Amino acid sequence: MPSAHLERLYRLDFGLLTDLYQLTMAYGYWKTGLHRRRAVFHLFFRKAPFDGYYAISAGLGLAIDFLKKFRFSPEDIQYLGGLEGAGGRPLFDEGFLNHLQRMRFSCNIDAIPEGTVVFPNQPLLRVEGPIVQCQLLETALLNLVNFSTLIATKSARVVQAAQGDSVLEFGLRRAQGIDGSLTATRAAYIGGCHATSSVLAGRLYGIPVKGTHAHSWIMCFDDELTAFEQYAIALPHNSIFLVDTYDTIQGVRHAVEVGRRMRRKGYEMQGIRLDSGDLGALSKEARRILDEEGFPDAAIVASNELDEYRIEKLKEEGARITVWGVGTRLATGHGQPALGGVYKLSAFQDESGKWEGRIKLSEQEIKTSNPGIQQVRRLFDENGTPAGDITYDVRGPEPDGTIWRQDGRKMSTLSFGRYSGLLVPAFQDGHLVYEPPSVQEIREFSLKQQQMFGKLGVADYPFGLSRELAEQKKVLIEEVAAQNLNSRKE
Amino acid sequence: MPSAHLERLYRLDFGLLTDLYQLTMAYGYWKTGLHRRRAVFHLFFRKAPFDGYYAISAGLGLAIDFLKKFRFSPEDIQYLGGLEGAGGRPLFDEGFLNHLQRMRFSCNIDAIPEGTVVFPNQPLLRVEGPIVQCQLLETALLNLVNFSTLIATKSARVVQAAQGDSVLEFGLRRAQGIDGSLTATRAAYIGGCHATSSVLAGRLYGIPVKGTHAHSWIMCFDDELTAFEQYAIALPHNSIFLVDTYDTIQGVRHAVEVGRRMRRKGYEMQGIRLDSGDLGALSKEARRILDEEGFPDAAIVASNELDEYRIEKLKEEGARITVWGVGTRLATGHGQPALGGVYKLSAFQDESGKWEGRIKLSEQEIKTSNPGIQQVRRLFDENGTPAGDITYDVRGPEPDGTIWRQDGRKMSTLSFGRYSGLLVPAFQDGHLVYEPPSVQEIREFSLKQQQMFGKLGVADYPFGLSRELAEQKKVLIEEVAAQNLNSRKE
Repeated sequence: MPSAHLERLYRLDFGLLTDLYQLTMAYGYWKTGLHRRRAVFHLFFRKAPFDGYYAISAGLGLAIDFLKKFRFSPEDIQYLGGLEGAGGRPLFDEGFLNHLQRMRFSCNIDAIPEGTVVFPNQPLLRVEGPIVQCQLLETALLNLVNFSTLIATKSARVVQAAQGDSVLEFGLRRAQGIDGSLTATRAAYIGGCHATSSVLAGRLYGIPVKGTHAHSWIMCFDDELTAFEQYAIALPHNSIFLVDTYDTIQGVRHAVEVGRRMRRKGYEMQGIRLDSGDLGALSKEARRILDEEGFPDAAIVASNELDEYRIEKLKEEGARITVWGVGTRLATGHGQPALGGVYKLSAFQDESGKWEGRIKLSEQEIKTSNPGIQQVRRLFDENGTPAGDITYDVRGPEPDGTIWRQDGRKMSTLSFGRYSGLLVPAFQDGHLVYEPPSVQEIREFSLKQQQMFGKLGVADYPFGLSRELAEQKKVLIEEVAAQNLNSRKE
Repeated sequence: MPSAHLERLYRLDFGLLTDLYQLTMAYGYWKTGLHRRRAVFHLFFRKAPFDGYYAISAGLGLAIDFLKKFRFSPEDIQYLGGLEGAGGRPLFDEGFLNHLQRMRFSCNIDAIPEGTVVFPNQPLLRVEGPIVQCQLLETALLNLVNFSTLIATKSARVVQAAQGDSVLEFGLRRAQGIDGSLTATRAAYIGGCHATSSVLAGRLYGIPVKGTHAHSWIMCFDDELTAFEQYAIALPHNSIFLVDTYDTIQGVRHAVEVGRRMRRKGYEMQGIRLDSGDLGALSKEARRILDEEGFPDAAIVASNELDEYRIEKLKEEGARITVWGVGTRLATGHGQPALGGVYKLSAFQDESGKWEGRIKLSEQEIKTSNPGIQQVRRLFDENGTPAGDITYDVRGPEPDGTIWRQDGRKMSTLSFGRYSGLLVPAFQDGHLVYEPPSVQEIREFSLKQQQMFGKLGVADYPFGLSRELAEQKKVLIEEVAAQNLNSRKE
């Protein structure tokens, strides 16, 4: 079940899944006759989330689903026709509404596949097409790529902290909405989580689902021992006992007792779950009891507001936890609940159809956007290890191996052997030319990427612009500055 | 358009919108013959979000939509039939799957209406019915109520910080998924925001939509003045000019110039928008220029990572901002992206059908859950001002006006006149008996609630348990402790 996530989920067409200003600008382009001119926008983030060095790209599958549903229904058009500006005057006229109703997505989109290790200012998506369409797509593409990339990255951090232990994603109850949870589960799996508690995500994506029982199960019986025993009778093949309803260590002993009774019937207790208290100390004591009592293979699952920091700390303390249940803090991107991805115009055709580079200036030089029609080239050394990433303009010459920083200063010169382009064609003239992999395939790919980069000191991994792109940017900055100066003198 | 949000949005049935352990417990209840016994669960939060004192309840409308779609489709049943436990053994048997397929929602649900000011440990929802159903509903109800309540509360905080100025919600591009954004927009409106940028939310809920143009509009023209002028020609009734693409103060002067040209044609410039830099200082300078140049009514909209703290600070600095655009930090609940709402068993029928109170102990006494079948009584003084909230067991005597803390200590005695019960019937035997108000009505109600409580020093607002509920809890804590002691001696 590779794609069609949104198609299966949502009843609606997605033309209106946008900010109003995209529609008012679209109207403006249409009124001024600019709407057929072609533009290039890039979607990128400026800073890796969670104070990290990189992100795991995700969301392309959803973006593809969205683009397939990008159209305006008659209800949408009717709604837009009723919108009013100042003085109760209609915001849009009939001609424009007809234009929208007839609009068929016809852009070219190149994208970095999901699961790729990506760095700040690299285009995750490049959208080229009539400016009116590029503009209308901005908000939804940002929504879909921002959130998925955020959670895939968080998940990779959590999974890396768990050092090979299983990580279960438990976030549904605290996630931001229904698809907030489904999307988070999908992205968490891409980042490397092993399973989820969310049954709907299991059904929709084929992600393994896990879960046994909660405190309420225990509270329905007269005592914990009976509750465990009844659970074991009902579900002997799914026996992780939650041991902290009353007294955790006593709970472990009850689990052992029921584990013994299960053995007599030919079943094996799978383990216990800790959900409160000092997880480090409790896991050690639980491990000691389980080992002593003949259950050395019983898993110790832990949950309770876990994230990569707490897992790292517990690991340092020598916690004997074997499976990590991570919920709220993973599914909502605790610490940074939004990736600040942006979508910037970088090239626009003039009347004759010639491309002109565009930049958005910023008071912080580092935030000034990059112009052109960009591709990212990843260079590898002779051993196949990534050596550096160069963002370049596909209209210019081949990059020469020098890397230039966002602010125009030269950073390093790489010698390299093999290289590859990170962006691949996804849509051509509005037609899908990319077969999205399944989430299982994306997860495999992402784990390989993480392994590849995990060995490097990514803090020093070189990435930046090609010589020519840095040059183009410098010239444009000067042009814009000169223009402003003229404009100021007017 | 009062409800049916999820119905209009989603194609799916929602039986599987749950954690796997709810289904394995449901299976356990069914196997042990407990599944027809009735239970009571309450949904509540233990701590007001964002270090505040209260929350604005929200999400009931969505919970109602969810309950209407709570059923298992043939595809769902097929999926569940394929799930495996240890050793590849099927997790569920045929009989249980038939039970699920035939299951029709039949619970009684009482709920606090959306927009109400609510305090920690008060039940926002009370679910009474066959334990198997109560259990299956837990995860989705938490998901829906947690997130909406979080964002409605964040919105109320932002709107209060803006002291009567308009607040626009701009969060779509950074929200957590598509319905993460739609739900956030709905909740933000309930909390008091005046409008949204999200056109789809506008269409679905009738929330006013706002927006004019972005930097990309400016970048499509040779210079900013031309860009403003072209925009004004295309959309003279929707003219807020974004002035910070190149140089903010110069941008203000360009807006003034275009505003003058508009006047000559009989139109009025509505204002400008600041999106970067020192918003306080820039707004003062912009105000001075606009006033001097004859545009005293022009609005100054500001945006850029705003939240209640930054708005308060800008207000203190004397910023001349008249409209606040708040995006990421509102739509994702910055600072606390999840409300830690929980759903706890509080009463269970014994074999004879008699209710028994249940509690979940915790090492922290304050976190031990409250038993019984609860209602919240809000007491008012002679002037109609809220005087305190008492949570009591509807099976017991009328509360006597004494309020007891979570930990069982007496807090205060209130004299009161009028009172009202906060929970109202929503479903009886699975049938909807509540007509959900429109989001417009909910917003009105929420603003009145905020005004009513805003005048009080809510830090000291008394809320807690009735004498009898506190007694019942104490007895249960002792019973459970004694049981554990016995169990330990076994």
